[in-house]
Amino acid sequence: MFQEENIIALATAPGIGAIAVLRISGPEALEIVAKKFRPFSEKNWKVQKSHTLHLGHIVDNDTVFDKVLVSLFKGPNSYTGENVVEISCHGSPYIQQQILQLFLRNGCRMATPGEFTLRAFLNGKMDLSQAEAVADLIASDSEASHQLAMQQMRGGFSNEIQNLREELLNFASLIELELDFSQEDVEFADREQFNTLLNKISDVLQRLIDSFALGNVIKNGIPVAIVGEPNVGKSTLLNALLNEDKAIVSDIAGTTRDSIEDQIILDGINYRFIDTAGIRKTSNKIEKIGIQKTFEKIENARLIIYLVDALNFDESEIKKTQEKYPDKKILTVANKIDGLSQKQHDAIVGLAPHTIFISAKEGTGIESLKSTLLSLVNKGDLGKEDVVISNSRHYEALLKALREVEKVKVGLSENIASDLLSIDVKQALFHLGEITGSVTTDDLLGNIFSNFCIGK
Amino acid sequence: MFQEENIIALATAPGIGAIAVLRISGPEALEIVAKKFRPFSEKNWKVQKSHTLHLGHIVDNDTVFDKVLVSLFKGPNSYTGENVVEISCHGSPYIQQQILQLFLRNGCRMATPGEFTLRAFLNGKMDLSQAEAVADLIASDSEASHQLAMQQMRGGFSNEIQNLREELLNFASLIELELDFSQEDVEFADREQFNTLLNKISDVLQRLIDSFALGNVIKNGIPVAIVGEPNVGKSTLLNALLNEDKAIVSDIAGTTRDSIEDQIILDGINYRFIDTAGIRKTSNKIEKIGIQKTFEKIENARLIIYLVDALNFDESEIKKTQEKYPDKKILTVANKIDGLSQKQHDAIVGLAPHTIFISAKEGTGIESLKSTLLSLVNKGDLGKEDVVISNSRHYEALLKALREVEKVKVGLSENIASDLLSIDVKQALFHLGEITGSVTTDDLLGNIFSNFCIGK
Repeated sequence: MFQEENIIALATAPGIGAIAVLRISGPEALEIVAKKFRPFSEKNWKVQKSHTLHLGHIVDNDTVFDKVLVSLFKGPNSYTGENVVEISCHGSPYIQQQILQLFLRNGCRMATPGEFTLRAFLNGKMDLSQAEAVADLIASDSEASHQLAMQQMRGGFSNEIQNLREELLNFASLIELELDFSQEDVEFADREQFNTLLNKISDVLQRLIDSFALGNVIKNGIPVAIVGEPNVGKSTLLNALLNEDKAIVSDIAGTTRDSIEDQIILDGINYRFIDTAGIRKTSNKIEKIGIQKTFEKIENARLIIYLVDALNFDESEIKKTQEKYPDKKILTVANKIDGLSQKQHDAIVGLAPHTIFISAKEGTGIESLKSTLLSLVNKGDLGKEDVVISNSRHYEALLKALREVEKVKVGLSENIASDLLSIDVKQALFHLGEITGSVTTDDLLGNIFSNFCIGK
Repeated sequence: MFQEENIIALATAPGIGAIAVLRISGPEALEIVAKKFRPFSEKNWKVQKSHTLHLGHIVDNDTVFDKVLVSLFKGPNSYTGENVVEISCHGSPYIQQQILQLFLRNGCRMATPGEFTLRAFLNGKMDLSQAEAVADLIASDSEASHQLAMQQMRGGFSNEIQNLREELLNFASLIELELDFSQEDVEFADREQFNTLLNKISDVLQRLIDSFALGNVIKNGIPVAIVGEPNVGKSTLLNALLNEDKAIVSDIAGTTRDSIEDQIILDGINYRFIDTAGIRKTSNKIEKIGIQKTFEKIENARLIIYLVDALNFDESEIKKTQEKYPDKKILTVANKIDGLSQKQHDAIVGLAPHTIFISAKEGTGIESLKSTLLSLVNKGDLGKEDVVISNSRHYEALLKALREVEKVKVGLSENIASDLLSIDVKQALFHLGEITGSVTTDDLLGNIFSNFCIGK
C-alpha cells in the first residue's frame, strides 16, 4: 500500500524551544528537501548513507531561513518505511512556520493526525495494536500506564493473537476444503485437535478480557469522589493527599496545573479526584439541586470517599448512598479525630467497622488512607510478563471474538454442518484480525489515527 | 577552556509532541549514554562515526524506558565542540522527565540556561555576538528580526570588528615597544598610518552605532499608542489594522493570543499597539487618573496615533500633547469621514496639513495609514549586505569603543606621550573585544547566557 504523497508536520511540541524538529515522509522526501537544503560538507547528501546527520542551511532563492541539522532515513529503514527526512531547526515558532510553509509550497502537504504512524502500519513496520500503543505512550503520564504502552508497543499480546489466528485460519481452510468435497462426507479437519485449539484460544481471550479491568484503571486512572457535608474537611483532605506528590508531578514540564491539581499518582496508578458539593438533608430547593449534581458526579466515580465528622458521626447518609449505588466502593473516612475519645472511636467502629480515622489538618491517618486506596487495585506483577490490555477497542474485539469462538465450540460439540461452522470461524477470524490490523476498514483506521497528534 | 562536567537538558519545547529531544554534552557524553542505551543493530555504537543515527532502547536495569533514536556527534564537530548525544524520544512529558532523571542519576547535571551555547563559545565554535544571535533567532517573531539574527549568527559585523581590532592591536604593540625604548625617543608606529586606521575604525563604529536605531526597531518592534476620546473609534481602528494579518499571525503554532492581539507586522516590522484610555478635558477626579495613566503609556510609545472625530475636529489637544512630548512622532488621524463634506475636509487640512483621513468602520484609508506607519521606518536594504546591530550591549560597547578611539585620535594629533596613548588604545581594544568576546568577564558571560532558554 504505497503512499504517493509527501507529508510534513512539526514533530516536537509547539512553542519556543532550543530546537524544533520537522518531519517529512514520502517517496520524494529526499528530493524535496535537497532542493532547499545546502549542506556544508557534502555536495550531494541524497547519496549519503541512511541514518546520517548533515549540517547546512535551509534556503529559498537567496534567503537563508535557518542553519539546520538534517537527519536522513532511507526507506524501508525508517519510521514510516518510506524515505524520511527530519529537519532540526532553531526552535522559534516563526522559523518552524517558515520552514513548514516553504515545504508546503514545494511538494509536501500537511500530515493528518497520526499519518506517519498510519503509514508505518500500512507499510508493515508495526501492527495495529503497536501503532495504537504509540499514541498511548505519548499520552501516558504515570509509570504504570507508560509501562503498559511500552509493552504493547513492543509486541505485547498481538504476536500471541496473531499466532492463534493463524492456527485458526489453518482449520478454517481445512473446513473450507470439506465444503468442496461435501458430497463425499470427508473430514479433513481433526475435530479433536480443533477443539483443543478452540479451548486454547478462548482461554487466552478470556485472560486478556479479564485483564482489561486493571488495564483500564492503569490507562485512565481511578475517578474518586470525595463526598461529605460542607464543613467536614474535603478540601483539607484533598490538600493533604496531594501535598507530597504535587511538587513531583508539577516538576514534569508541560503538565498544566489545571489537570494535575486534583490527581495523585500512587504506585503508578492515577487517582483523579472529582470535586463535589456536600450531601446533607435539606429542604432548601437550591441546595437540593446542588446535591443532585453531586449524585451525578458520583455516577462517574469508581470509588467514593465518604468523609464524616468523627465527633458527629452519622452513618445513615452513607448507608443511603451505598444503597443508591450498590456497585460503587465506598470508603468511610472519619475526620477531625484530634479530640476523639476512645469511647467515641469504638462507637464509630461499632457502627462502621471499616472506617478509616484521619485528621486531615494534622495529616494523621493519610498514609493509611493511601494504603487502602492502593489495596483496591490489584496490580499484580505489572510490567513483567503478564499481558494487560488497556484499549477499549481491543476489549470489544476480544469479547466479540470470544463469543464467536464459543459458538464454534458449541457447533463442534453438536456436530453441525461444515458450512455453518465455517461462518462462525470466519467471524472469529475477523474479530481477531481487527485487533492486530490483519483485517481493517477505512473507518476503523480513521477512528484510530484521528486521535493521534499531528506529527506522529 | 575544557569543561569537565557533562550536562543534559530538554532541547525541544516543553509539553506533548510526537517526539522530544534531550541533549547531552560533555567529555563523557558517549560513555554515559552507552551505559543506558541498547542499540538494535550495532553492539558498540560509541565506535560508530560522528553524525550517525542509531535506533534502540533506553533501559535502566531491566526496565525499558523508551524506544529512541540517538544522534551521535563527536567533538570538535558538534554544536558545543564537545562530544554531544541527542536522544530523540517519544514526546510525552512523562518520558522526557524519566529519561532526564535517569541521566541526572548517571553522570549528568542539568544544563544552565544557554550553557550549550556558552560551551560552543568557550570552545571557539562561535564568537560572542554569534552566540547572542542564537538567542535572538529563537526569540524572533518577524521576518526582519529573524533575518537580522541570521545575519548576526552567520558572522555579521563581528568579523569586521575582529579584523579592525587586530590591526589596532598591531599598533598597540608597536607603541608598547616605543615605551621599552622610551629613552631613545624612537617611533615604531607610523603615526600617519595609525591615524588612517583610527579614522577607518571610527567610521565603521559610527556606521554600526547609527544602524542601532533601525536594529532596535526591528528587534523590539515599534510601540504605538492609539490616543483619542472614548467614542472616537480606537477599537474599530485597531481591529481594522489587525484584521488582515491576525489570521496569519495566529497561524503560527505556539504564539499565544495574548501577545499577538494588538500587534501587526508590516513588511517585517512589528507595530505593537498600546491600549490607552481616552484623553479629554475633564474635571472628574477619577477620569483624570485614567488620563494620567494614558500619559504614562504614551511615555513608552515611540509613535502616537492621535485619533479624532472628523466631524468634530479640534486640534488643540493634539498640539498640547505634541508640546508635552516633543520627541514623539504624532500622526493625526481623522476618523468617521463617511459624512464629511469637501469643505470640512479642507478645513481640517488647513488646521493640520498631514492629517490622514480614514473611516475605521468602512476600512477607508487604512492602507494609507499603514503606508505612513511604514514610511516612518527606513529599512533600507535589510537582509542584504548592510550590517545592522540590534543588541543594546553591542551598542553600548560600540559607543564606548568610539569614545576611546576619538581620544586616541585627539592624543595623536596633539602628539601626546606614547604611554598615555597606550592607555586609551588599550581601552578601545577592550571595548571592541567585548563585542566579539575576545575580552570577557564571568559577569558578562553570566549576564548574556542567563537570558537563554535551557537546552540551548
